[in-house]
Amino acid sequence: MKAEIITIGDELLIGQVVDTNSAHIAQQLNDAGLDVVHIASVADNGSDIVSALDAATARASAVLITGGLGPTNDDRTKQSILGYFHSGTRFDQGVFQHITELLSRRGVSVNERNRDQAKVPDNCTLIYNPLGTAPGLWFEKNNTTYLFMPGVPYEMVAVLSNAMPLLHNHASGSAIRHKTILTQGLPESMLAKKIEAWESALPENLSLAYLPSPGLVKLRLTGRGASNKEIDISINEQVINLKKIIPDYIFGYDQDTIERVVGDLLKEKGAWLATAESCTGGAIASMITSVPGSSIYFRGSVVAYANLAKLELLHVNEVLIRQYGAVSKEVVEAMAAGAREILHADYAIATSGIAGPDGGTDDKPVGTVWIAIASPGGMFSAMHRFGDERERNIRRASVTALNMLRKAILGLL
Amino acid sequence: MKAEIITIGDELLIGQVVDTNSAHIAQQLNDAGLDVVHIASVADNGSDIVSALDAATARASAVLITGGLGPTNDDRTKQSILGYFHSGTRFDQGVFQHITELLSRRGVSVNERNRDQAKVPDNCTLIYNPLGTAPGLWFEKNNTTYLFMPGVPYEMVAVLSNAMPLLHNHASGSAIRHKTILTQGLPESMLAKKIEAWESALPENLSLAYLPSPGLVKLRLTGRGASNKEIDISINEQVINLKKIIPDYIFGYDQDTIERVVGDLLKEKGAWLATAESCTGGAIASMITSVPGSSIYFRGSVVAYANLAKLELLHVNEVLIRQYGAVSKEVVEAMAAGAREILHADYAIATSGIAGPDGGTDDKPVGTVWIAIASPGGMFSAMHRFGDERERNIRRASVTALNMLRKAILGLL
Repeated sequence: MKAEIITIGDELLIGQVVDTNSAHIAQQLNDAGLDVVHIASVADNGSDIVSALDAATARASAVLITGGLGPTNDDRTKQSILGYFHSGTRFDQGVFQHITELLSRRGVSVNERNRDQAKVPDNCTLIYNPLGTAPGLWFEKNNTTYLFMPGVPYEMVAVLSNAMPLLHNHASGSAIRHKTILTQGLPESMLAKKIEAWESALPENLSLAYLPSPGLVKLRLTGRGASNKEIDISINEQVINLKKIIPDYIFGYDQDTIERVVGDLLKEKGAWLATAESCTGGAIASMITSVPGSSIYFRGSVVAYANLAKLELLHVNEVLIRQYGAVSKEVVEAMAAGAREILHADYAIATSGIAGPDGGTDDKPVGTVWIAIASPGGMFSAMHRFGDERERNIRRASVTALNMLRKAILGLL
Repeated sequence: MKAEIITIGDELLIGQVVDTNSAHIAQQLNDAGLDVVHIASVADNGSDIVSALDAATARASAVLITGGLGPTNDDRTKQSILGYFHSGTRFDQGVFQHITELLSRRGVSVNERNRDQAKVPDNCTLIYNPLGTAPGLWFEKNNTTYLFMPGVPYEMVAVLSNAMPLLHNHASGSAIRHKTILTQGLPESMLAKKIEAWESALPENLSLAYLPSPGLVKLRLTGRGASNKEIDISINEQVINLKKIIPDYIFGYDQDTIERVVGDLLKEKGAWLATAESCTGGAIASMITSVPGSSIYFRGSVVAYANLAKLELLHVNEVLIRQYGAVSKEVVEAMAAGAREILHADYAIATSGIAGPDGGTDDKPVGTVWIAIASPGGMFSAMHRFGDERERNIRRASVTALNMLRKAILGLL
């Protein structure tokens, strides 16, 4: 069964806001067995909204729409919907009470704009929005289902989650399954070369996609068939074959992230981690602590941006910096050893490099990054040459360092 | 003149990858005076690509397309294009040489897949791609212009930048201008209420949009008219009026970010910054160091996730933690004072809170965050109650802390 997504908002068309809603909705629809065939972003005006609804209706039997339901004057979706579904409005006491409670918890009093949000179309099902003032609106018309949701991402997530049972009812039986294999350490074309024979021997019902992002390449296997179980067996067989070809490069699957994989390994071991970051500037600590529960294996970090922080906090010997420079094997190893000691950790990651755009030399161009891992099994370090772009360099260094830690914990270094 | 964007890739339709390309392209097109009226994401298969091209051609005179030009088997755009533009292929020696050089710099040897990328359509203009193996392809057909670009974001950015002169030629004279006012500290509906009279008195040719994101609300003014200069005068007049109504809440404009605004203030003052982060886990340091050149005002950070890091590295008195708890005015102020001292900084930010999902109590529920600023003018601290969601709490605490620092530097606290 086919589905489409429409995101409404002028901010999308002028590129001020990145549309993250579509990706989330698409994931959820896929998991429910719905096949997303088209995503459109249109302006917040009546005629464009109606054209987009017409085009989607011609192709799909479920249309999910976000945006334009807010309390401010630039939100025009609700007006356009009323005409499209030949709907009147009614004042909903339940919605109004929810709005009042929500705002009073935030210390805000209800104003006329908020009160207007309790006026809802009179021929739709309301979907509860625990996090915001605008409820989701579920319409059915000529065998097509329409779900209108707020555009604020976390409100949309909550509304969609409440609408999933209705969507599951709507979805039919033809199955699609995806499995993603996460690799680190090989660029896309080298990876493609290495797994060429495996790829061309894939069965007919499986297809492969390469998804590169800074520091890693994801391989997505998509299978189609009669049942989830049948497809899963076929996919798992191929994953086992792939693991034999590139065992050390695979660090996880599907929604895994390198920070979560490393966190799980540390938890299993009952080991403590610390970081000493120069060029990554706290990005590694930030990735690690984005994982709920990380406080049971992460002691903390010294972001030693200035050399004096390397000397005074991490106890790096000044002679090393003078002799080898801050971006060197000697200094990055001393940083890792220092962090491991002062933060009473079992493992420590250290980074020192030139993220750019300035600071490069002939010897050490922008993109040069030293990474060290201090561990119970000894010290490991490696130099990398990433690219020219600051943000990407920080990201690639962080991902590479976390994968190096993973290998150190597993005894693969 | 109207433009459309089409992003191609199955990964977009299953929600595995967020489409960031569209926002960047839309910004560039807007700056060139082109009005983006529609963005579509479609699957990497010939018929969907051709349908999307047809639909876009019916509405717009410039169509920008990304994706499907890579070296792997799942990239089908090039094949579909050949039919659509009645084009043959030719082997381009210049492209092949570029591919060879690019790969050898990465220590990779050229394989058959890479060689195939030098086969290009024979009736288009090639746009140089300095960062990747697939060049951009510029077609013209019946007064409509088509630009095909690679899907990897940084390659697309490079190709688009090289195509901008051609796009400027293509664009006509009707002007659109945007100005965004960045606010922090007021939720959307309170802000809307506060500026209601100003909003309803806006001239006809200006429109306003509210763009909330965690920790801040952006206000975007869009003007249309005969010339950029005329619109800018009208917009600037309104911004001056707005500044009188909410002076303390505005921290910047357009592409400003709070981390860049704060960095510029520190640079002006010749002052040094340090951070001591508990619940934000390095996110503030990471934001600060994402700004090129931040090493001239940022000493570093102690991410004191474990209490022992607060005691040993930041010299927080153990009695304070025992008496008031780690999430308290007393401890967060001691952390800020400690960071300021040990990192020899003029200003220090400290955070301590409960990001969630676990760790909340009746007294201090999830979302409770204490923020302190130690400064030459004294110590400032405040408690905030954010929400239930870990990632958003970290982001809101970071943005709020940086804005508090901004106010401390400007003497607004």
